[in-house]
Amino acid sequence: MFKNHSDNIDFGSYKYYIRDSFLDLSKIMSSMNIKGIKICIVSDSNVSKLYTDEVKKVLNESFDLYDFSFEAGESYKNLSTVQSLYGFLIENHFNRDDILIALGGGVVGDLCGFCASTYLRGIRYIQMPTSLLASVDSSIGGKTGVDFEGYKNMVGAFYEPLFVYVNTIVLKTLPEGEFKSGLGEVLKYAFILDKDFFEYLNENLINIYNHKPKTINTIIYNCAIFKKMIVEEDPKEKGIRVFLNFGHTIGHAIEKLSNFTKKHGECVAIGSFFAIDISREMGYLNENEAKRMQQLIMDYGFDIDIPDSISTDDIIKAISSDKKQGKDGLRFIILDNIGHAKIISNMDKKYIIRGIENGKETNKRTDTQI
Amino acid sequence: MFKNHSDNIDFGSYKYYIRDSFLDLSKIMSSMNIKGIKICIVSDSNVSKLYTDEVKKVLNESFDLYDFSFEAGESYKNLSTVQSLYGFLIENHFNRDDILIALGGGVVGDLCGFCASTYLRGIRYIQMPTSLLASVDSSIGGKTGVDFEGYKNMVGAFYEPLFVYVNTIVLKTLPEGEFKSGLGEVLKYAFILDKDFFEYLNENLINIYNHKPKTINTIIYNCAIFKKMIVEEDPKEKGIRVFLNFGHTIGHAIEKLSNFTKKHGECVAIGSFFAIDISREMGYLNENEAKRMQQLIMDYGFDIDIPDSISTDDIIKAISSDKKQGKDGLRFIILDNIGHAKIISNMDKKYIIRGIENGKETNKRTDTQI
Repeated sequence: MFKNHSDNIDFGSYKYYIRDSFLDLSKIMSSMNIKGIKICIVSDSNVSKLYTDEVKKVLNESFDLYDFSFEAGESYKNLSTVQSLYGFLIENHFNRDDILIALGGGVVGDLCGFCASTYLRGIRYIQMPTSLLASVDSSIGGKTGVDFEGYKNMVGAFYEPLFVYVNTIVLKTLPEGEFKSGLGEVLKYAFILDKDFFEYLNENLINIYNHKPKTINTIIYNCAIFKKMIVEEDPKEKGIRVFLNFGHTIGHAIEKLSNFTKKHGECVAIGSFFAIDISREMGYLNENEAKRMQQLIMDYGFDIDIPDSISTDDIIKAISSDKKQGKDGLRFIILDNIGHAKIISNMDKKYIIRGIENGKETNKRTDTQI
Repeated sequence: MFKNHSDNIDFGSYKYYIRDSFLDLSKIMSSMNIKGIKICIVSDSNVSKLYTDEVKKVLNESFDLYDFSFEAGESYKNLSTVQSLYGFLIENHFNRDDILIALGGGVVGDLCGFCASTYLRGIRYIQMPTSLLASVDSSIGGKTGVDFEGYKNMVGAFYEPLFVYVNTIVLKTLPEGEFKSGLGEVLKYAFILDKDFFEYLNENLINIYNHKPKTINTIIYNCAIFKKMIVEEDPKEKGIRVFLNFGHTIGHAIEKLSNFTKKHGECVAIGSFFAIDISREMGYLNENEAKRMQQLIMDYGFDIDIPDSISTDDIIKAISSDKKQGKDGLRFIILDNIGHAKIISNMDKKYIIRGIENGKETNKRTDTQI
C-alpha cells in the first residue's frame, strides 16, 4: 500500500491538499465558487500569532474576515470555549452560508469542527492542521469533539470538513515536542497497517528529523491514505476503525493520569510500546518483531518512563472507566505481525497488567539509541 | 394528498408509530432485536410524574432502566441542562450501545435528541412525543437542538431517531393550552400544503376539541405525512423545507419578545395570521381566501392580540436578527392559495410592517366565533 510520493487525496465528499504555502487556499475556494461570505479563522493563542495574519492576507480580497483565538492547550478543549465561539459567531451575524477555518493542531480542529457541526445545526468548516498529529490523524475522518469533565472527546459529532489543507512549511516552526507527538501516531499507522511503511520509517529517521520536504510529504500522504482507507470502510467506528485505537487504551489512561501534561502522540507511543508487549505476552507476536517495533519507538526518541506517581493499578482503573467499553467487555487492539492488527473482545486485564510491568522492565533494560 | 385514516409511517431510516397505549413499545424494541442494554428515559418535571413509571413498567423486563428529568419549560432547553444530562449518562456508564428515550413535548425531544447526537459522538434515541406539537412537528425530521443566549435552536444537529412512538391517549391529559399550541402547527400544514386538509379542519373542529380518537389519529397521521414529504425532498433545509417556516418569522419574533410566555404553536398561529395578511397585501392571495384562513385561526380559539408592550418596530427588529437571514436578504414564506406556499427572497420589510398593522386591525374588527 505504501507509496514513496505524495499527491492530493480525494475523500469522496471532500479533498485533502498537501501544499508548501498558504497561497493555494484562495484558488481552491474560488474553484468551489465560494466568495463574498464571512470567514472566521479559529485558532489558539500559539498558532494565531504565527499564522492567522498570513492566512488572512491570502483571503482578504474575496471574504469578510474574522478571527477567534482561545488559550492553547487540551484543557481549553471544552464546552466553555465552544460557547465563547458560538457567542462570537452570533455577535458577528454568522449564518449558514458562512465558513469557519480550523487553523491549528488537533485541539483547534476538534473544537472548531464540533462548533461548526452544531452552530445553526451545522455550517461549513475547513481543516487547516498546523501540527503533524492533526495532519495525519485528527483532521481526517470527520471526528469532532471536546472533552467533558475530564473525559476525552466525550461530547462530539461526526462532521466532515469542506476540505483539508496542509501547509507542510508550518511544521518546521512547531515546537520539537509537538512534532514528536505526531510521530507517535505515524508509528501507529506503520504498526497496525503496513510493514513497508514501517521499514520506510526505520530508514528515514534522519530525514524526518531534518524536515526533508520529500520525506515529510511522503509520510503525511501515506498516513492520510491509511486513515482514508479505514474511515471509508468504517465511517462510524463500528468495525475496523477501532484499529486506530491501537496504543490508545493505555495511552489515553496515561494522558489522563498525567493531567494532559504529556502530549497525546507521546502517550500513544508509550501505549503502543505496552500493547506490543501485551501482543507478545499473549502469543500473537514473536519476540523479534516485538523488539523491532519497540526499538523503533525508542529510536524516535520516545521515553517510556511513566512517572512514579502513576501506578499500574491507576492505569487499569482509568482503562476500566474508558468509554470504549462495549457490551463485549474491554476491547483491546493487539498486533499479530508488523503491519497487522487484531481486535480482542473481553480482554483479560491480567495481560494488560503484565504488559505494563514488562514494558517498564524492558524500557529500563534497553538503552535508547538516539 | 390528504387521507381520512391513519397508519404507521415509514421514514426510510426510521418508522413512525401511532398507538393508543405504551404497550407496543417493548414489542417494537424486541422486533429490532434490542435488549439487555441501558435505557434512560429523559423527560421534564411535568411529563415525568405522569408517564415515566408507565413507560418503565412496559420496558423493565428487558432493560436496565434509568430516568432523568429536568424542570419543564423552554427556558431549560439550554446547554446547562444538556450538560447535566451528559453528567448523568457518564455517571451511569452509558455507552454507545445504550439508548435515550425522549418522553415529552418539543423541548424534551429537541434537547434529548441533541444530547443523543453529541454524547460519545452519537448514541441512539427514541422520540416519544407527548404533545400534539411534538407529534406533528418536532419529533419528525431529525432536527434537534437547544436555545443559546435567548436565540432559539441556535445550537443543534440533524440527527434521526431510532423510531417515533406516539401514544395518542396521553394527548387527552395535556393542558388545553398545550393542545391548542399544537393546533397552530396543524393549521400551518393545511395553509401551506393541502386545501382538502384545510376543509377537513374546518369541518372537524368539534371532533378535535372532543379528542375523538379517529379525528386525532387522522390529523397526526396526515401532518406526519406532510412533514415526511417535505423532509425527504429537502433533509437539510436547502429548499422547500423552508415552507415549514410559514408563520414562524413573525411567530418566533413574538415568542422571543414575550420571553417565551406565549406558547410556540400559538405564536405560529399569530404569525400565520399576519403572514396571510401580508400575502394578500402583496397581491398573491385574494380577499376571500385570506379571510377563510384567518377565520379558521380564530375559530380554533387563537387570540391574535399582541401585548401592547410589543410594538411593530420591536417585531421588525427581532425579525432582522433572525438566523434565517441568508445571502439573499430576508426570506419570507407567503401563500398564493389555500394549500400553496411560496418563498419570497429579499422581502421588503414595509409589507411586514403593513401586514402586522392590518392584522391587528382585522383582529379588532372580527369577532371570534368560538
